[in-house]
Amino acid sequence: MLRSHTCGELRISDVSKEVTLSGWVQRIRDKGGIIWLDIRDRYGLTQLIFEEGKTPDELIALVRTLGREFVIQATGTVTERQAKNDKMPTGEIEIWVSKIEILNPAKLPPFMIEDETDGGDELRLKYRYLDLRRTPVRNNLMLRHQVSKETRKFLDNQDFIEVETPVLIKSTPEGARDFVVPSRMNPGEFYALPQSPQTFKQLLMVSGFDRYYQIVKCFRDEDLRADRQPEFTQIDCEMSFVKQEDILNMFEGLIKHLFKAVKNIDLDTVPRMTYTDAMQLYGSDKPDIRFGMQFVELNDLVQNKGFGVFDAAELIVGINATGAAEYTRKQIDELTEWVKRPQIGAKGLVYIRYNADGTLKSSVDKFYTEEQLKAIAERFDAKPGDLMFLISGEVDKARKQLNELRLEIGSRLGLRNPDDYKVLWVLDFPLLEYGEEEKRWFAMHHPFTSPKPEDIELLATDPGKVRANAYDMVINGTEVGGGSVRIFQKPLQQRMFEILGFSDDEAKAQFGFLMDAFEFGAPPHAGIAFGFDRLCSLFGGADSIRDFIAFPKNNSGRDIMIDSPSPIAQIQLDELAIAVNKK
Amino acid sequence: MLRSHTCGELRISDVSKEVTLSGWVQRIRDKGGIIWLDIRDRYGLTQLIFEEGKTPDELIALVRTLGREFVIQATGTVTERQAKNDKMPTGEIEIWVSKIEILNPAKLPPFMIEDETDGGDELRLKYRYLDLRRTPVRNNLMLRHQVSKETRKFLDNQDFIEVETPVLIKSTPEGARDFVVPSRMNPGEFYALPQSPQTFKQLLMVSGFDRYYQIVKCFRDEDLRADRQPEFTQIDCEMSFVKQEDILNMFEGLIKHLFKAVKNIDLDTVPRMTYTDAMQLYGSDKPDIRFGMQFVELNDLVQNKGFGVFDAAELIVGINATGAAEYTRKQIDELTEWVKRPQIGAKGLVYIRYNADGTLKSSVDKFYTEEQLKAIAERFDAKPGDLMFLISGEVDKARKQLNELRLEIGSRLGLRNPDDYKVLWVLDFPLLEYGEEEKRWFAMHHPFTSPKPEDIELLATDPGKVRANAYDMVINGTEVGGGSVRIFQKPLQQRMFEILGFSDDEAKAQFGFLMDAFEFGAPPHAGIAFGFDRLCSLFGGADSIRDFIAFPKNNSGRDIMIDSPSPIAQIQLDELAIAVNKK
Repeated sequence: MLRSHTCGELRISDVSKEVTLSGWVQRIRDKGGIIWLDIRDRYGLTQLIFEEGKTPDELIALVRTLGREFVIQATGTVTERQAKNDKMPTGEIEIWVSKIEILNPAKLPPFMIEDETDGGDELRLKYRYLDLRRTPVRNNLMLRHQVSKETRKFLDNQDFIEVETPVLIKSTPEGARDFVVPSRMNPGEFYALPQSPQTFKQLLMVSGFDRYYQIVKCFRDEDLRADRQPEFTQIDCEMSFVKQEDILNMFEGLIKHLFKAVKNIDLDTVPRMTYTDAMQLYGSDKPDIRFGMQFVELNDLVQNKGFGVFDAAELIVGINATGAAEYTRKQIDELTEWVKRPQIGAKGLVYIRYNADGTLKSSVDKFYTEEQLKAIAERFDAKPGDLMFLISGEVDKARKQLNELRLEIGSRLGLRNPDDYKVLWVLDFPLLEYGEEEKRWFAMHHPFTSPKPEDIELLATDPGKVRANAYDMVINGTEVGGGSVRIFQKPLQQRMFEILGFSDDEAKAQFGFLMDAFEFGAPPHAGIAFGFDRLCSLFGGADSIRDFIAFPKNNSGRDIMIDSPSPIAQIQLDELAIAVNKK
Repeated sequence: MLRSHTCGELRISDVSKEVTLSGWVQRIRDKGGIIWLDIRDRYGLTQLIFEEGKTPDELIALVRTLGREFVIQATGTVTERQAKNDKMPTGEIEIWVSKIEILNPAKLPPFMIEDETDGGDELRLKYRYLDLRRTPVRNNLMLRHQVSKETRKFLDNQDFIEVETPVLIKSTPEGARDFVVPSRMNPGEFYALPQSPQTFKQLLMVSGFDRYYQIVKCFRDEDLRADRQPEFTQIDCEMSFVKQEDILNMFEGLIKHLFKAVKNIDLDTVPRMTYTDAMQLYGSDKPDIRFGMQFVELNDLVQNKGFGVFDAAELIVGINATGAAEYTRKQIDELTEWVKRPQIGAKGLVYIRYNADGTLKSSVDKFYTEEQLKAIAERFDAKPGDLMFLISGEVDKARKQLNELRLEIGSRLGLRNPDDYKVLWVLDFPLLEYGEEEKRWFAMHHPFTSPKPEDIELLATDPGKVRANAYDMVINGTEVGGGSVRIFQKPLQQRMFEILGFSDDEAKAQFGFLMDAFEFGAPPHAGIAFGFDRLCSLFGGADSIRDFIAFPKNNSGRDIMIDSPSPIAQIQLDELAIAVNKK
């Protein structure tokens, strides 16, 4: 080893030891007679000291040639510091250096290697290897390692077996777009990269593996939104001979274990909410329940009182921002503009302020009496000092808009503290959703999700009403995992494919192997998958997953550090029997 | 849960408990009055019992409709068996069943789900999910899980951090062929799948991660030999501030840990051999040292004695098959034919038999006196009862041919027991090898491997003589891992690219990011990667890696279960801006 100790481990008890450290020059303070140099590695910082007179002149001269981020090896004696620094673990000692070797010089980095950097996003991505040198970014990746370690520990203890499923699989038309890989050995044919190991984990259940997991890369060729990556990581799990309740209990156990091990938080029993309630009370299938402000529906109280907008609306629904009556007219106008932006799309925003003196003031005063407003306030359970907001329109749109407003106000009122964690199960998702454009039914989850047995009759009469045995885990308003009880019998699976518009031939060509497998003794099974990148970012208290991925791609799917994707050689194209279309 | 217990856990202490088991029908013995049914899951087998008179008639009738591999749920009472079976852990008990539910019927499998199956390779691959049901195949995958678990345990304890590197990277011309992935968002451009995370792990060292590992899928688009897979798994590792010796010690530690944890074998210190010695003594850079039969060179003893074949040869080299003098003329002829096959390519095989009576008999008796043969035998350290084989020709070819012969004879003499493990480090590989066809130097390992400092001068004068700080771990004649100390300074890396025939522009376009990184403070670093599939197959005592991979591809790179690769839709091609070439 090019060191006897790391830069994070020397203590007062090591005084007078002869040691060798290797690492990077973090900073140099040259006070004329005395030079201090902080040397850094993954494990910490240690202070080196040099003093004119005591330190040989050549060594002093050498130290004065060093710059930030030079890689050096330093040998010397551990000494007690005169001015101790209780903010760093090695702060009681320093090294009186007798020898320095420059292992590698360094150019000046294009941005500061400090906790707070001056580098912009693109610059930091281009020099990702330098950005990863910064302690907060490295800590994110160490957190990620810890989360994966604890995940494996928990699942191993529960008799799960990690099985690697293939990366070169088959393209299927259902779901998002596949990345494909041309096969040289089979010209004109392509592999696809998995969007998830769904069918393989189901086959493992058919094989009797009983409990499977995998922390696995998955791929989706989507138009990237701000916080999506073309490759991402899942904790993928499946169990046999279980009911939905068993899955919920097992993975509530996992999330409790992770919170305890990673954050030292004892999580309460995870509450459960049906999809229907989530939509009605929060306008979202992933409600943030760190704060209340549940939706209150007002049609019966506010319609037919002469306010045309409400009269024409399918739904009038509101929230009560507790204690927000202090909001100025300007703030309310701002919020009104905010919900009217095209991203939200509300036509307007009605407010009712419950003044401290008990009077009520609203933007629709001319349509409603004080008494009528009181009745509304009562339904909100509002108190003096509160501020109610009402949105109206078509049911789905009004709820969606009010959900956005609720989250925005929650943020503005400081009710969405990232260190406060609220976990929730959302249950009983619809099995199908209708594609207005395509004029056909789509699987809300995927085609292998089982309908609730008691709803199977509705498949023939009212498919949109069929509930699935499907569940999502939501933390602080973010979906971190989801899964379902699976179909495991061929006739029901065939029926699902029919409903989804697959011809018999299509179903057979795409998923014949799975339906064959169901005929050879498939056990009842169910599973779940967690978004691992997202889970890590939540544990790290961050909004973006990007800083929890070592080498992320930018929003155009490019790795700008290695400059990929890139053109390939004609000979490669020829061997693969493909050509690039002319523009 | 659809069970109260697994099929492997009930014991005599559970007698009289009411239990519910779920699993597969393994076999049914219907002896008229009494029916025994073995129910199977991942955890074991349990015997169910039904008896006419005691068991309700409808239940007996139902049981008689069951077939092999039906999935059933059985409820009943644990009872002590009359005839105990000490070969199965549950052999002391059986279940008197009161209720059976058929969870899923099963067609007759296309091959027997037994330890020894009647299914051929292709059939087993097509119905892989049934093959995985067989205990030996499932045990292989459970072994694999155990090896990965123990690998992580060891490396975690040594402060290694697992970091996921990207799967969508950039195509580089050096090395094997890349699989590529067309980018829809960047038309005409392609990602490549990694052949290894080499450059990324080096960048992580530049980032200061200090100790990195990853159990990671890698990809090579090669013409598949019998035991290659287009996707395979590596244990990939890298360390900073280390010398070669540190790597050897660390990963000797890993392999010892794995042998202890997985096989309960205490491994001795791993011996080391230089590449030069390995080639000279075994004709291979991955010698099987479970047995001796080291090569003996004989030029000085056998040349210029009138045997033209030997006189014309660059090298005459032999092995002594201890105790093989009993080999018949027919067996020797067979071996002669064996080495003359085109796969081996020897022109002939000379033998010298040391008879039990002390006389010597050879196929070249007419050229050599008894005394001369004795001198040869002495050099082999041969004893009466031994049989020596000599091969001659060009140095490299003769060694290669004799290596094959040595392994074959080792096998025939039963000296290659898969349960006997001999681990070896092979060191000091050449840095470069000359491509006669391409008329240029190639990196023997890869372009990032460091030459030995003392050999750097030879780069200018005699590149073929330059030794690398590169090392392989060999177990029982199979290379299971390899790595090197890396170049970490830009000038040397540039020089390597020059020697390998990269123009400045090419080097910059392909690896500019790495050379840039070396300028911002790159630490000395080194690493290694193990072939995880191969390691598992060795621990499993098997020759083929295929049965240690859940869903392997066949020798044409096809997954015949899911029928992939396969054509994709025209709309997919259009979106990706590519076309399939007409044949």
